[in-house]
Amino acid sequence: MSGFHKLLQDAAGQVNTALDTLLAVPDGHEGRLYEAMRYTVLADGKGFRPFLCLATAKIFDAPEPAAIRVASAIECIHCYSLIHDDLPCMDDDDMRRGKPALHKAFDEATAILAGDALISLAFEILADEATHKTVTTRLDLVAGLARASGMQGMVGGQMIDMMAARDTLDAGGLTRLQKMKTGALISFAVDAGAILGGAEASERNALSGFAHDIGLAYQIADDVLDIEGDADILGKSVGKDDAQDKSTFVSLLGVERAREQALQLSHQAVSYLDAFGERAEPLREAAAFVIQRRS
Amino acid sequence: MSGFHKLLQDAAGQVNTALDTLLAVPDGHEGRLYEAMRYTVLADGKGFRPFLCLATAKIFDAPEPAAIRVASAIECIHCYSLIHDDLPCMDDDDMRRGKPALHKAFDEATAILAGDALISLAFEILADEATHKTVTTRLDLVAGLARASGMQGMVGGQMIDMMAARDTLDAGGLTRLQKMKTGALISFAVDAGAILGGAEASERNALSGFAHDIGLAYQIADDVLDIEGDADILGKSVGKDDAQDKSTFVSLLGVERAREQALQLSHQAVSYLDAFGERAEPLREAAAFVIQRRS
Repeated sequence: MSGFHKLLQDAAGQVNTALDTLLAVPDGHEGRLYEAMRYTVLADGKGFRPFLCLATAKIFDAPEPAAIRVASAIECIHCYSLIHDDLPCMDDDDMRRGKPALHKAFDEATAILAGDALISLAFEILADEATHKTVTTRLDLVAGLARASGMQGMVGGQMIDMMAARDTLDAGGLTRLQKMKTGALISFAVDAGAILGGAEASERNALSGFAHDIGLAYQIADDVLDIEGDADILGKSVGKDDAQDKSTFVSLLGVERAREQALQLSHQAVSYLDAFGERAEPLREAAAFVIQRRS
Repeated sequence: MSGFHKLLQDAAGQVNTALDTLLAVPDGHEGRLYEAMRYTVLADGKGFRPFLCLATAKIFDAPEPAAIRVASAIECIHCYSLIHDDLPCMDDDDMRRGKPALHKAFDEATAILAGDALISLAFEILADEATHKTVTTRLDLVAGLARASGMQGMVGGQMIDMMAARDTLDAGGLTRLQKMKTGALISFAVDAGAILGGAEASERNALSGFAHDIGLAYQIADDVLDIEGDADILGKSVGKDDAQDKSTFVSLLGVERAREQALQLSHQAVSYLDAFGERAEPLREAAAFVIQRRS
């Protein structure tokens, strides 16, 4: 395993340990809800968003336990979006993270509720004193996650994506969609690390540029994987965008130009990290990872 | 219209005005998401939870604009729960607030996303500076709403309710279910008013007792209405609990004893309000309303 994959796996493991404790299954009928939440959040996630939060927090020497809690909250939001997106009336995906999607393993109603409960849990984690002693820091995190996850961020992007299945987007429209649908939460993962570490505004701006570019590169790479990827390695269906006649960076630019664009974004992302020196090395590796990944 | 119904209507109107502004429809495909959110939150809600928040805030002279924002956040959570509960895989209700449920008026995917976005919006509203100048107050509100709405509150209760359709609960189990499913958010509406007003711990405790009792009385009355209510007045289907063979307070106690229990809870609720004198009169009227309402 490469050094970077080890970093990802460590981040995923730390978040899993935290969520395993936070989601201890209670007695009573609601235990089924916790089991459903655990089924997805403790599954074999890539750990990309948790890694971004932890690696950024480390640049500023923020306490690791705090960063793990924040990364866990972000993973809750990411997982809820996967659960709801996989539902039959949405993307109708049967497989996720190499096993049956939650609504297949449990049922649709439980999947909807598990997603809903993960949203509340994310905000509960951030608001808790254990996350950071400073009230303002916790509130900044709550406000940031609320914006990134909601109508102006992830959910708004998902709505555009659904509409775009019927209505072709141009590259500008597709970029805006991805900035909202996947970019907002990726950007928040980086910003959350900076908030936890008490970063200056100029540092947060630089990191925001980095996050924007890797977020977009990540999505372009995702579109390429949907065409060229291996379902076994990805742990989910491939070729769905094409089958659904969706606008993607590949359908708009072709595979080659899409690859080039992702490469260029990755280089540009790294240029934002100069001021952070050696400490930002893991983030530079992330910029390389997003365009090289196979799953 | 009675004086109390006027108070409810005023609360609903104030929240509608605030949400109408917060949910101004943007250009772009995500506009459909906002339209869907507006369809439910601007519909003719009873205003019960907003009223509880506003009336409690008023006891402590909390600024009304702040209380309206908090009441709006609570209404967002209440509406999201109605939207998701009405889905075919959940309670499968076609009517809500006298018009087609959101998934009938739009589609299932949009209904799921609108519910999701309302959760994030609620936390975004609470975390915003416009809600209260004191950071600790906003964070207390966020933490309280996260707990009330999530796995230990509303969603956990909904999970129990789904399981209970197949597994008969006794009165204790049913009380616990309702305390989570509907009681937690009603209690938060009261507590939020107290938090906004900087209430003492003893005052919050007394109000918590009040909220607990009216929440349960409200639910018992709801079960009675499901048997005896008029679908036209209720704006939703009736007789569903019976058709689904669900445990309700009526199925466990019979209509007469259920009524008596609700009456007793209503009296008990009022007894918690003695320390607040005249200022708690609207809350006393609420305790009477919950057992007299026809819709």
